Amino acid sequence: MHPSITGSQLLAGKESKSGTGRFRAVNPRTREPLPRSFSEATPAEIDQAAQAAAAAYEELGAYPASRLAAFLEGVAAQIEGLGDYLLQVADEETGLGLPRLRGERARTTGQLRKFAALLREGSYVQAIIDTAQPEREPVPMPSIRRMLFPLGPVAVFSASNFPFAFAVAGGDTASAFAAGCPVVVKGHPSHPATSELFGHAINQAVAAHGFPPGTFSLIQGETVAVGQELVRHPHIAAVAFTGSLRAGRAIYDAAAARPVPIPVYAEMGSTNPIVILPQALATRSSEIAAGLVGSLTLGSGQFCTNPGLVFLLESADTEAFIAEVAGRMAAQEPGVLLNERIESGLAATVAGTVGREGVERLVGGEAVADGPYCFANTVLRTTAATFAAEPALQVEHFGPVTLFVVAPSFAALQEAVGALHGNLTAAVHATDAEQELAGALFHQLREKVGRLLWNGFPTGVEVVHAMQHGGPYPATTAPATTSVGMTAIKRFLRPVAYQNVPDPLLPPALQDDNPLGIWRIVDGQYTTASLPAV
Amino acid sequence: MHPSITGSQLLAGKESKSGTGRFRAVNPRTREPLPRSFSEATPAEIDQAAQAAAAAYEELGAYPASRLAAFLEGVAAQIEGLGDYLLQVADEETGLGLPRLRGERARTTGQLRKFAALLREGSYVQAIIDTAQPEREPVPMPSIRRMLFPLGPVAVFSASNFPFAFAVAGGDTASAFAAGCPVVVKGHPSHPATSELFGHAINQAVAAHGFPPGTFSLIQGETVAVGQELVRHPHIAAVAFTGSLRAGRAIYDAAAARPVPIPVYAEMGSTNPIVILPQALATRSSEIAAGLVGSLTLGSGQFCTNPGLVFLLESADTEAFIAEVAGRMAAQEPGVLLNERIESGLAATVAGTVGREGVERLVGGEAVADGPYCFANTVLRTTAATFAAEPALQVEHFGPVTLFVVAPSFAALQEAVGALHGNLTAAVHATDAEQELAGALFHQLREKVGRLLWNGFPTGVEVVHAMQHGGPYPATTAPATTSVGMTAIKRFLRPVAYQNVPDPLLPPALQDDNPLGIWRIVDGQYTTASLPAV
Repeated sequence: MHPSITGSQLLAGKESKSGTGRFRAVNPRTREPLPRSFSEATPAEIDQAAQAAAAAYEELGAYPASRLAAFLEGVAAQIEGLGDYLLQVADEETGLGLPRLRGERARTTGQLRKFAALLREGSYVQAIIDTAQPEREPVPMPSIRRMLFPLGPVAVFSASNFPFAFAVAGGDTASAFAAGCPVVVKGHPSHPATSELFGHAINQAVAAHGFPPGTFSLIQGETVAVGQELVRHPHIAAVAFTGSLRAGRAIYDAAAARPVPIPVYAEMGSTNPIVILPQALATRSSEIAAGLVGSLTLGSGQFCTNPGLVFLLESADTEAFIAEVAGRMAAQEPGVLLNERIESGLAATVAGTVGREGVERLVGGEAVADGPYCFANTVLRTTAATFAAEPALQVEHFGPVTLFVVAPSFAALQEAVGALHGNLTAAVHATDAEQELAGALFHQLREKVGRLLWNGFPTGVEVVHAMQHGGPYPATTAPATTSVGMTAIKRFLRPVAYQNVPDPLLPPALQDDNPLGIWRIVDGQYTTASLPAV
Repeated sequence: MHPSITGSQLLAGKESKSGTGRFRAVNPRTREPLPRSFSEATPAEIDQAAQAAAAAYEELGAYPASRLAAFLEGVAAQIEGLGDYLLQVADEETGLGLPRLRGERARTTGQLRKFAALLREGSYVQAIIDTAQPEREPVPMPSIRRMLFPLGPVAVFSASNFPFAFAVAGGDTASAFAAGCPVVVKGHPSHPATSELFGHAINQAVAAHGFPPGTFSLIQGETVAVGQELVRHPHIAAVAFTGSLRAGRAIYDAAAARPVPIPVYAEMGSTNPIVILPQALATRSSEIAAGLVGSLTLGSGQFCTNPGLVFLLESADTEAFIAEVAGRMAAQEPGVLLNERIESGLAATVAGTVGREGVERLVGGEAVADGPYCFANTVLRTTAATFAAEPALQVEHFGPVTLFVVAPSFAALQEAVGALHGNLTAAVHATDAEQELAGALFHQLREKVGRLLWNGFPTGVEVVHAMQHGGPYPATTAPATTSVGMTAIKRFLRPVAYQNVPDPLLPPALQDDNPLGIWRIVDGQYTTASLPAV
């Protein structure tokens, strides 16, 4: 028994399809519309979702962390309860294939459970206490105690390329729920049936755990208006978005123009430069080529961490390496792309890049006609000087495409690296003997990215405490935050200080005897101890 | 020997007055322009300051925390070295009086030294380490290590009302320097000589500590264009602002509209509601009245934490209390205001409020003609229903003005409290027997403010670890941050993760043996220990 897919909005646990607009997803393997039709959300439906979220927040915002943790675990179990039906529906809508989707499901449920563990540990509220000094002159020092509280209802925009992990019950939703914030998800129009299944799973958990129905709503639509309406709603307190620079910036602009501006955590893509130093190339050229091609073609290149730029120094080794990568890319069957817009967008950006003076097309460069949405595995090449002089060469090619940037000297390479815009990641491949050069590159690249890799490839983002999946604009609109990893919860929390408030009126995290047993900073010292009796 | 005040911009240690525009400050006690004239910064000068800051950042961003700490202490010592001359110059420009300015100087140097102590302790970089799991299936888990790094050059906009603590070398500058960020300050045009003295003091410390000259620049001007030019400069990475809602929002909008948007930490004022419950009034009416009037008239009411709204329940005690406050306010000599704009602005906002139906003027309400810039201590009154229905009654009256909001029932009081916009603070006065009602109010008010007080008054913001001086819009544009207290440094830091990077290429805070001895989160556990040898 699996939930039926009705093509409705899921508004605080109730199905609704009051609008007249309808849309269908397309099977990317056949380019044919799929049979189910989905209702485009109306302004009234969006208002209903946001109002219900605000009502739910009144309760949810006051739940203890342990209750939120149990709910997150409940969502994970409900997702697993959808069984292989979820994989089949998602595969039909995305063409990503069952093995990848099975792995992504494990990541999605795993990250819900990791946030649950973070909540049970409890120190994420960052309790800070400065004790009173009644004797201080000229005036007594009051007791001041600070911790983090939820921000309010969050709007989450699903990505197309991770229909599970960055979508309806993905990292943004998991971290917002973990923070105690209700969520209104705008599902991605490429995979509406998948979205609806996740929505039903979340609603099952909402009901089972006795959470208010407005804890979660799913709205669907393929027009820009649906998302804009949601971002402008006065009850929405923050926005999380994963998608293109163009869409992310539009949402950022709309949120900034509100009477009450709200934060937009938009993760918008990246070219993820890799620098390969000569000795690394000399010692393991084929290994790096294989790793690079694997990373480039993973998910048909539709990763925000896809390595779209590779910097090298001129040499015979470099020529051989580029030839090997080009050969491997040409030999590998190109994968299915998610939808028509990605295919045509990729064709346009690649054509723009190839058309620039100083850029050479080595292999690929065009969409593959007939059959699925597909773009040939593509390798382009330019010089460091051309790259440094032309910002347009930093455009993201969202697909299996990389641009080699070859420099005549390390200084020229550093100049090209210095011209880089903000990115999610950068990697350096080097031998231990090249650590000095690598150190200089890391120093430069650290200003450009959120994550630095040594002898690795950027695809594969671990969901751990230390992960930073973010970076300077245009990679994101909020470089001080991450959308993956446990600190992603901080996006949806806000500090409040209590001054001289009696213990019974304080939240448990701030009470004298530290009933939660969490780590706190007391008078500047980290401790799990109770406060000494006065 | 004190530094001479030349009316120049201080651009990376060099004086400049290339523009033709000139302005003068006015002595608020006499309404007469002061003799010194100051040069209005030109676009070329602003560009020069920002370029120098970017160049300085290349060095400063890599300094160890201990070196930044010594510099902050050096700035504090240089400020003290200005001696009483600083107090005289500031008093002439602000009319705040020597005792207040002496206290504010101690706070300013104290906060520089507290940030130095935070740096020496070192855990503020929030190091998080997840260790490698080479045996993990299906792929090995890499080592991932994250910490905070500086953001880049910061633009700081001085406030008029705290010419030391929220100005050239105030909390924003101190926390930006502490983060390793160069600073370009836009001085407030009300006290340009004071600004210049602080600028010279900082430059002395920059030179003495061998910091690059672009570490600090001061630009002056009274036109909006100067500030806008600075915010739009591509080398500026973040903005800190203290001032009016109108100016703060204009800066926020300019920053959001940049090709590369940047964060604006604008603290824009607040009405700081106080709720007084019946038993508190019954037991210590006069004490509360005295405390309230003291808080209202401190600094002539020109505090962002001035208690501009007081909520009470209808009763004979309430009538007596309001009469006592009105009497004390009328009896107290009103203080000097900082400048003409504050006086005329206050007259306009108070006139607007008094002109609304349902608002009663009890005492004051007008500027005091002749003599200094001055506005009569003012007490207004309305009902909870009127307040709940009219958002315009939440305007900040920046001066010695409060509005009593009297409710016929606790429910009506809660409805009025529920209508509150974002504020910096809220306070509840109650007896221990009233804790249940107070708890309900705290629950409501927690969503509205950054700091909750019990039986206290909001003026007097402690510079401590737990302080939260911030709050939902329109109190600030960045409710998740504070402009006072040690966590203010977080505004100017950004996380970067290192994946599988060898120990010698890691920053000390992330190295295996924890050479800085700081607190870190290792595999989810707080610890100061070294990593176990693999």
